[in-house]
Amino acid sequence: MIKGLNEMLKQDFGIHIDDQDLLDEAFTQASYVNEHRGEGLKFYERLEFLGDAVLQLIVSDYIFKRYPKMPQGRLTRLRAAMVNEQSFSTFARECHFNQYIRLGKGEEKAGARDRDSLLCDIFESFVGCLYLDQGQAEVTRFVTKVIFPKLDEGMFAEFFDHKTELQELAQADGPVAIDYELVDEYGPDNDRSFKVNVSIDSKLYGVGIGHSKKAAEQKAAQQALEQFDTEGDNLV
Amino acid sequence: MIKGLNEMLKQDFGIHIDDQDLLDEAFTQASYVNEHRGEGLKFYERLEFLGDAVLQLIVSDYIFKRYPKMPQGRLTRLRAAMVNEQSFSTFARECHFNQYIRLGKGEEKAGARDRDSLLCDIFESFVGCLYLDQGQAEVTRFVTKVIFPKLDEGMFAEFFDHKTELQELAQADGPVAIDYELVDEYGPDNDRSFKVNVSIDSKLYGVGIGHSKKAAEQKAAQQALEQFDTEGDNLV
Repeated sequence: MIKGLNEMLKQDFGIHIDDQDLLDEAFTQASYVNEHRGEGLKFYERLEFLGDAVLQLIVSDYIFKRYPKMPQGRLTRLRAAMVNEQSFSTFARECHFNQYIRLGKGEEKAGARDRDSLLCDIFESFVGCLYLDQGQAEVTRFVTKVIFPKLDEGMFAEFFDHKTELQELAQADGPVAIDYELVDEYGPDNDRSFKVNVSIDSKLYGVGIGHSKKAAEQKAAQQALEQFDTEGDNLV
Repeated sequence: MIKGLNEMLKQDFGIHIDDQDLLDEAFTQASYVNEHRGEGLKFYERLEFLGDAVLQLIVSDYIFKRYPKMPQGRLTRLRAAMVNEQSFSTFARECHFNQYIRLGKGEEKAGARDRDSLLCDIFESFVGCLYLDQGQAEVTRFVTKVIFPKLDEGMFAEFFDHKTELQELAQADGPVAIDYELVDEYGPDNDRSFKVNVSIDSKLYGVGIGHSKKAAEQKAAQQALEQFDTEGDNLV
């Protein structure tokens, strides 16, 4: 049994896994099982398979409802930005999962404990374990704590080219004029800020501030997009 | 409103969708919406996005539990064999969904109504609609009627090379001897049958009968594999 894991889950997330063997399985790599033959241990891969599908659905359901007007293409890109190795390994580290993984000696030496691919796997296998042991609603509660706030913090924003997205969306029904206008810049040379307005057919849709014109334009486009995704596609 | 669709769902599947607009959305292609501007219609793509994730999880959950010893690689391949355009378009036809799709005139002329890719999309969008309107448990009930029986009927078996799978699985812990032996053949020349035994390290694991030696070997390997997937990986 992996020491302290259930206690940490209780303290940090209010989660208790009843089936300790299942929890151990979720945090055990094949290399560890190979070094402990005859102990009847299991490794995490099957739980990872299941957890991946659980996360796909919970994330899909959330963004589908949060952005009632977001077209399928953008939903798919947003989900791909949220459900991937880079983000899941980040979440696994934030949840301190890396401390509890059981690895074989060779893998430990090779630095597997800090490898994104392993941490991503473990995040998914933990979710598979939580789903089986406590049910889908508990996974939703966990994900609502760990993943969804990142959406508001802009964690996934970097995966998007908002200007291209805005152009595609605004022009879906025919050509429109999208203009980015630098309306202000301020601050010292080594910490300069830029403010950009974006308008569609002369109507203001978004304002962005950034440390470069390019960054400010992206933020303005992002703000404009949010109106399309939440309020409707007849804005223009 | 699409005539007769909710009635057919009631009669064939015991399903009633309360939100008729949502049901219409699930069966309406963008080409139809484009020809009916100003009527506030929606097309199926967002529901397809959601339905795809719902199906992935329900199928994953089912095969995970049905085959408690199946390794991740085989689970992933089996899911891919079940969740794809070919199988979903087959299910859509069996459910008579093709009769109810709303298409633009050009798409209708081009034969879209019988196109696998569209039928697959509609199967997924219907599931998205069912999930939103009646909940995940109702989707599981639907899928248990429409998809899971196909597993027993061998619908997905053709996607597998059972001999290769058996070799990979049996040799996971080191080299073993896998032998296929033709033990019988019978019937007239134009309808000949072959019977093949497969043994691993001289122990019989499966028997297969087919109209060619190759087909009989595949069936023998499939039977052997089922023992690994359901009973444990310490058989050898």
